[in-house]
Amino acid sequence: MLIFEQINKSYAARKKTNMYDLIIIGAGPAGISAGIYAARKKIKTLLISKDFTGQVGRAFFIENYPGFEGIAGIDLMEKLKNHVQKFDIDMRGGEEAKNIRKNNNIFEVLTTENNRYESKAVIVASGRDPRLLKVSGESKFIGKGVSYCVTCDGPLFNGKTVAVIGGGNAGFEAANDLTNFCPKIFILEYAPQAKADELEQERANESEKIEIIYNADVKEIRGEDFVNALVYQDRISKKDAIINIEGVFVEIGSIPAIDFVKGLVEFNEKNEIKINPATCETLTPGLFAAGDVTNIQYKQAIIAAGEGAKAGLAVYDYLKK
Amino acid sequence: MLIFEQINKSYAARKKTNMYDLIIIGAGPAGISAGIYAARKKIKTLLISKDFTGQVGRAFFIENYPGFEGIAGIDLMEKLKNHVQKFDIDMRGGEEAKNIRKNNNIFEVLTTENNRYESKAVIVASGRDPRLLKVSGESKFIGKGVSYCVTCDGPLFNGKTVAVIGGGNAGFEAANDLTNFCPKIFILEYAPQAKADELEQERANESEKIEIIYNADVKEIRGEDFVNALVYQDRISKKDAIINIEGVFVEIGSIPAIDFVKGLVEFNEKNEIKINPATCETLTPGLFAAGDVTNIQYKQAIIAAGEGAKAGLAVYDYLKK
Repeated sequence: MLIFEQINKSYAARKKTNMYDLIIIGAGPAGISAGIYAARKKIKTLLISKDFTGQVGRAFFIENYPGFEGIAGIDLMEKLKNHVQKFDIDMRGGEEAKNIRKNNNIFEVLTTENNRYESKAVIVASGRDPRLLKVSGESKFIGKGVSYCVTCDGPLFNGKTVAVIGGGNAGFEAANDLTNFCPKIFILEYAPQAKADELEQERANESEKIEIIYNADVKEIRGEDFVNALVYQDRISKKDAIINIEGVFVEIGSIPAIDFVKGLVEFNEKNEIKINPATCETLTPGLFAAGDVTNIQYKQAIIAAGEGAKAGLAVYDYLKK
Repeated sequence: MLIFEQINKSYAARKKTNMYDLIIIGAGPAGISAGIYAARKKIKTLLISKDFTGQVGRAFFIENYPGFEGIAGIDLMEKLKNHVQKFDIDMRGGEEAKNIRKNNNIFEVLTTENNRYESKAVIVASGRDPRLLKVSGESKFIGKGVSYCVTCDGPLFNGKTVAVIGGGNAGFEAANDLTNFCPKIFILEYAPQAKADELEQERANESEKIEIIYNADVKEIRGEDFVNALVYQDRISKKDAIINIEGVFVEIGSIPAIDFVKGLVEFNEKNEIKINPATCETLTPGLFAAGDVTNIQYKQAIIAAGEGAKAGLAVYDYLKK
């Protein structure tokens, strides 16, 4: 929370008005990149974020943001935050957009802290929230063995046997990271094979600590005060199996964080905001969206940073008109 | 040239065949980012580049590649090059693609060194070359006072009065950089106002060394052995004017480097390769293009890096089929 106090204190000292040229919602790579580009264009900008971490901050180690051969997710986010703060930009931490309205070409953004900000343009860069497993025991044991963030919670499971649900990149990366703490890690994948990068799969296969279970349909998370077992059905034999574990990391994807923007934009079948890929424009003039919250095909930190830059420049062109 | 020797020696030691899954042409942010993503997917990749600098390498100082608050262009390119070399990827320096053909779903790339490489997919990330002024004296005095790269040649003009042609970001950045060397810098802009970022314009306006001449139609570069004057017409008064300068930096934009790919792709009116913005696909299946060589709306290093990542992932999807 200290980070929000610093950011919000600096905000209180610097802000002159609640009226901005641009409000950016979200401070992941897309939002921060948009902020850098907007501020360099002298656009009066407010950046709002519930946190300054997002999905990148939850990543244990990042090897594919070109320019950084290997960097912890939280360290990359720290660099991005410091970068945007170098410029003349207002920042608000610890609050989320609750609702956006547009009247007479002015946007009104209401936040979870009941603050009200106005602007001529908005960039939605609110990213994605983790997808839930939706099985019995999941919600009951959140914080008691069920986690959606290895970076945040991995060290808490030191010496314990755990399961990672999901055989995509996120699942394999999580399992590989957990080898630093856990003597035994199961990866449970619903499909007959994994979708993760070959490099991540190789690493997992080389580790004696990791065991991959394919065709696994997770049915239940069990425990008393804390998680102690997981039940899954083998999709081939149709038989249930129980494994004794003390932690479950759910890594089955994410869903766009878009509730506050309904009515102003169009969504695709995955609930992602549809944008003009050249300019990040949405259905509503002046309302732009960038990064993982949108319908771009590939969700990656470096792609989101590029999309944010694009949105910042497109807002500049919009405001000139 | 040392850099090419090292790269090509390592190439000779590592290459096993002239047949690749993927050939990437160009090693700016787009090409290198594509290389990082392809190599992490275990795609057998060859990266060909005439240099490992490109437009970014020619930039004096970069403040808008998110994650690096401020970095010399050549240092950023060095970091990108080191990053891609960490992975299992073949690299060839000092040669350019001369021609690409496609037969039976295999691409054949011929290079200026008369080497011949084959692959299942190609990413064109060859960037852009500087646009020429096309006035009398320009070609005669290249290397004798006429330059297209402040980063490369700026220090050679220490203590001299110079002109920068072009009032866009590149022109203003060049002029601001040159204040480190030159006592007097003229910026000549054809239009009645500059198009550069407000931040760059402010810096130039604050410098006593920089004088901006608007409505200037450059007519001639004069000299004997070396440049000593520049003639322009004032577009309002229609009168010619001469300024005594010893250097001319031409910063009027760039053109895509695409000669070798004609017949396989579609171009827009600016000679940029038309791509599917979601996947970087061109007209020819298996042939992708990424970064400043394409018809993307905004040309920026961070956007090109994002586009390269996208192309690398799209090639992976293409090869799986």
